[in-house]
Amino acid sequence: MTYPVKSYAAFSATTPLAPHSFERRELREDDVLIDILYCGVCHSDLHMARNDWGWTQHYPLVPGHEIIGRVAKVGKNAKKFQIGDLVGVGCMVDSCRECSPCQHGLEQYCEVGNIGTYGGIDRFDGTPTQGGYSTGVVVSEDFVLKISENLDTKAVAPLLCAGITTYSPLRHWNVKAGSKVAVVGLGGLGHMAVKLAKAMGAEVTLFTRSLGKADDAYRLGASRVVLSNDESQMKEVANTFDLIIDTVPYTHDLKSYMPTLALDGTLVLVGLVGELKETINTVPMIVGRRSISASVIGGIKETQEMLDFCAKHNIVPEVEMIDMQNINDAYERMLKSDVKYRFVIDMGSLKA
Amino acid sequence: MTYPVKSYAAFSATTPLAPHSFERRELREDDVLIDILYCGVCHSDLHMARNDWGWTQHYPLVPGHEIIGRVAKVGKNAKKFQIGDLVGVGCMVDSCRECSPCQHGLEQYCEVGNIGTYGGIDRFDGTPTQGGYSTGVVVSEDFVLKISENLDTKAVAPLLCAGITTYSPLRHWNVKAGSKVAVVGLGGLGHMAVKLAKAMGAEVTLFTRSLGKADDAYRLGASRVVLSNDESQMKEVANTFDLIIDTVPYTHDLKSYMPTLALDGTLVLVGLVGELKETINTVPMIVGRRSISASVIGGIKETQEMLDFCAKHNIVPEVEMIDMQNINDAYERMLKSDVKYRFVIDMGSLKA
Repeated sequence: MTYPVKSYAAFSATTPLAPHSFERRELREDDVLIDILYCGVCHSDLHMARNDWGWTQHYPLVPGHEIIGRVAKVGKNAKKFQIGDLVGVGCMVDSCRECSPCQHGLEQYCEVGNIGTYGGIDRFDGTPTQGGYSTGVVVSEDFVLKISENLDTKAVAPLLCAGITTYSPLRHWNVKAGSKVAVVGLGGLGHMAVKLAKAMGAEVTLFTRSLGKADDAYRLGASRVVLSNDESQMKEVANTFDLIIDTVPYTHDLKSYMPTLALDGTLVLVGLVGELKETINTVPMIVGRRSISASVIGGIKETQEMLDFCAKHNIVPEVEMIDMQNINDAYERMLKSDVKYRFVIDMGSLKA
Repeated sequence: MTYPVKSYAAFSATTPLAPHSFERRELREDDVLIDILYCGVCHSDLHMARNDWGWTQHYPLVPGHEIIGRVAKVGKNAKKFQIGDLVGVGCMVDSCRECSPCQHGLEQYCEVGNIGTYGGIDRFDGTPTQGGYSTGVVVSEDFVLKISENLDTKAVAPLLCAGITTYSPLRHWNVKAGSKVAVVGLGGLGHMAVKLAKAMGAEVTLFTRSLGKADDAYRLGASRVVLSNDESQMKEVANTFDLIIDTVPYTHDLKSYMPTLALDGTLVLVGLVGELKETINTVPMIVGRRSISASVIGGIKETQEMLDFCAKHNIVPEVEMIDMQNINDAYERMLKSDVKYRFVIDMGSLKA
């Protein structure tokens, strides 16, 4: 049997999201059916809905990859979850499971390409995957995460993308007590980077172009706020940071940040998908063996580790709850950075 | 007493190098006087002579930072060398010796700025430093390297720049038996990168745009030659390399190389000093957590390690000997990449 769900979908790149009813697949042996409670709203949702990156493959497209819900049914060989368990689904629902990255728990770097929670193509039946702006979803248990009941459930959703996208590079580049970390931008990703780096014991600096974010940055855990367009402030932090997490989702100049990296420091781009139109210059890189890198989400094992870390440290994103019906307004506000710091859809609004 | 030397110097950015006589300083307590036998010719020599980078500070400028010679005199507290010892001087003759990189044997990344063998300013007397296109040089023993008598002395000189510039990133990024390393460009730096990576046990690929270099590449140690402007050949090596050593000394597009890096691979720029005019794109970086980095020479301790490694493995650059009087012709040929693979000046030609 299949499972009818209500959702909101983009029907084209140029029209607002609108209601859409469809059927979720019959459970395979390793699948679970999840009754969705909340879904976070990521910038990628908007970019994919509008085909901003040019790789949206199908419409209607149901966005949403920060999914929190409860298990409603389990496939006959699915053993990891019980009915009623609080669970999450992030940006992936499958991968080839055979390449070297998959074998090492790095499904996000699957050489064949991981299967996106929405906008992808199911490996077995060739149907388009559809995301979490819906009342239910069917996912292989191997891509389902356990969620602690001790966190504020409404606020947990954005951990599945904004959380892991910043946690993974912090871990990969060995951030620990005493590390000096800078974060560029204080949006959905940036505010999580500040919270997580602080919880790992790092000394956290926020780079921003608007002092209006300073109070929030300090409250979230930063010990320093540097105006990135103030040359003298930038000079004061030369040779300082082991890692810069750059969350800016549009092209921007990296030149002023590079000299603030310590020897062997890395600036890791986690927000920008596409061309960096500003050129880079090797001189500030050469004089400190500094690197530019880029990272995307995290593997399933690491995502679980991040969720457990957040449960232990009581870390959740700061969210603003919206009804499903207000998603188009939320997109407009998101484009203006008018959100502190992540919208989360209460899926009860769609069920009512 | 000071030491009169003969040399060749640039007297301006636009005139050929010409003979120049001057005095080397009186020995300080930790100095040694070196009677120069050979000096390699580096691309940087030409760029500095012509002020291509805009930071040449003084004329006349005596280039040369791949110096081989014998100790002719030692300062009263200099203890590391005896008169007659075969020694080398590379790109640096001093650094602040106090910052964190200096304390860690990474004088090349001195936060105050290391003192170049030529084109720099002496920390103590404020005089310009002058390089190895000369019959003698006075250098603090801490920046002098021991050279094995077992290598071909004429050919050793380029190890001091081309050798260490490629050895250091190979070591820093942990190249070892079984590593997959690609080298972009087969010039002075590139041919050393191939030889050194091979000696470290790596499987070495050369990226080139001219098949004419293939035979040499195989002879030097490469097991594969890939035409970087052939899309199908590039696709065959997707997700392959742990490290790419990019020795190209001018701006060039990195886009085709990035997908050939394995997960967590790094492309390290060692040839280009300045602006990379072609844009980068984060997509191939994001999907494999791939990095772009840059590296410059190596510290004194690592340079000695490299020289000892080369002595053990009998590795020297392939050189073409020239007389000092032919330096301007050599520069013109170097600009046309008409050298296999490094010019070395026989300083006997200047003494005669």
